[in-house]
Amino acid sequence: MSRIAYVNGRYLPHADATVHIEDRGYQFADGVYEVCEVAGGRLVDASRHLARLQRSLGELRIRQPMSLAALSTVMREVIRRNRVHDGLVYVQVTRGVAHRDHAFPLTPVAPSVVVTARSLPIARREAQAARGIDVITVPENRWPRVDIKSTSLLPNVLARQAAREQGAYEAWFVDRDGFITEGASSNAWIVTGDGRVVTRPTDGAILAGITRAVVADVLAGLQITLEERPFTVDEARAAPEAFVTSSSQTVMPVVRIDGHTLGEGRPGPITLRLRGEFRRFAQLS
Amino acid sequence: MSRIAYVNGRYLPHADATVHIEDRGYQFADGVYEVCEVAGGRLVDASRHLARLQRSLGELRIRQPMSLAALSTVMREVIRRNRVHDGLVYVQVTRGVAHRDHAFPLTPVAPSVVVTARSLPIARREAQAARGIDVITVPENRWPRVDIKSTSLLPNVLARQAAREQGAYEAWFVDRDGFITEGASSNAWIVTGDGRVVTRPTDGAILAGITRAVVADVLAGLQITLEERPFTVDEARAAPEAFVTSSSQTVMPVVRIDGHTLGEGRPGPITLRLRGEFRRFAQLS
Repeated sequence: MSRIAYVNGRYLPHADATVHIEDRGYQFADGVYEVCEVAGGRLVDASRHLARLQRSLGELRIRQPMSLAALSTVMREVIRRNRVHDGLVYVQVTRGVAHRDHAFPLTPVAPSVVVTARSLPIARREAQAARGIDVITVPENRWPRVDIKSTSLLPNVLARQAAREQGAYEAWFVDRDGFITEGASSNAWIVTGDGRVVTRPTDGAILAGITRAVVADVLAGLQITLEERPFTVDEARAAPEAFVTSSSQTVMPVVRIDGHTLGEGRPGPITLRLRGEFRRFAQLS
Repeated sequence: MSRIAYVNGRYLPHADATVHIEDRGYQFADGVYEVCEVAGGRLVDASRHLARLQRSLGELRIRQPMSLAALSTVMREVIRRNRVHDGLVYVQVTRGVAHRDHAFPLTPVAPSVVVTARSLPIARREAQAARGIDVITVPENRWPRVDIKSTSLLPNVLARQAAREQGAYEAWFVDRDGFITEGASSNAWIVTGDGRVVTRPTDGAILAGITRAVVADVLAGLQITLEERPFTVDEARAAPEAFVTSSSQTVMPVVRIDGHTLGEGRPGPITLRLRGEFRRFAQLS
């Protein structure tokens, strides 16, 4: 079966799915995106993703291309046409096509919309979660508006590549005060020796992760204490457990930070419990 | 006459010139570019632009898509096909098309290459230069690798839009110490009361502008002192003259900074002299 992509009103074979060379997403990274998990053929927390997309568009003053309900319908249709049972749906909206000029187009143009979906190999993800991942730390070098989920992702690309080259899977950014902000494509968490779970508050230095918000609900449901505060690299390396959260990984255990093994070097019990309970707190639609 | 664009080996009508939705330039801003002036049908300082493109690609470890000589031939062909006598040629190279994953593609892919050209209305540019432009200042909020001419330009977009909304043409970024780094799409310069010309050194906080380098040659040729040092917003506002340099504007006088009028509010004599002498020092090819 060939993949199908939605591009500006049309469902196209993936190979033929293109955007104009003067799409501002291509020339200026002038666009935003969302990645939403698909579980059992259903969208996970779609309404929260769409609300965040709407916020990102608003922050950049990109016109909303269609109602969130209509966009949700397109996402479902792309999932259906690609027969995705477990995987991801990707939504990208840019300011549209215009003659190259940094400032917004003087004559309003239609935003561009791309929606794709793909299956993810569940077994491989579960095997990865059973082992846990390595993360490295890198200096924070993104622009300050990381609260906007924009496609201005070059620092994230370089950080993830640095991680891979050091045998790790994710990179955590560290701010100038030595505190971890978040991962290149995930939020960062640690567990303290007495079983509290710590993650950075949404202070502008991180993206307000959807999975992050769900994990906060899980913690409340399990009566585990959540501490929203910055934590240092040293505290993270000394933590018995750590994990990352993202739509594509839900709760993914971290077993090594910069080569320092956490605890026994295996996914921790609290992390695994959160991973196990996650689906119960996510909203399927 | 319809415009023609070069895209990955083909010369296409501009309207049909597209790239794949999974081009990493579109999804990650994982690409670089150059804008080169065309004067009298000839490329201005092409070899310096191509050398900088090569450097940008090297810094991001994007494979060079073809020899610089071949790329230069494509640029000339795009200029010829679009009958550009005076204007710009735009070259963009991205890491290529791959399934979405932040890190570099595991299986090497061909870089994407886009080349476009367009005429610029000389009379309008000259009228603008005769009046001079307004600039505003905005806090520096770009990532630290602005020495790489990447398409990660969202902060630049927002800065130029802020300028327009305040009746200005360009925005100068100001670092945390109060020093101007550069404009959103130009280098920033001032002239001191005793006729020295000041611009920030290529200290990593600015792009090494090609026009900037040519102006340094002009200054040497005219025996005007060049001071490469950071300067503050206050010093700039109090300066008798200021200007910006870029490939599309060469030397463009600045007459107001944040609404503060410089000198008599007209382009200054040293600025106009540099603008007048610029072409004599640029390399046409």
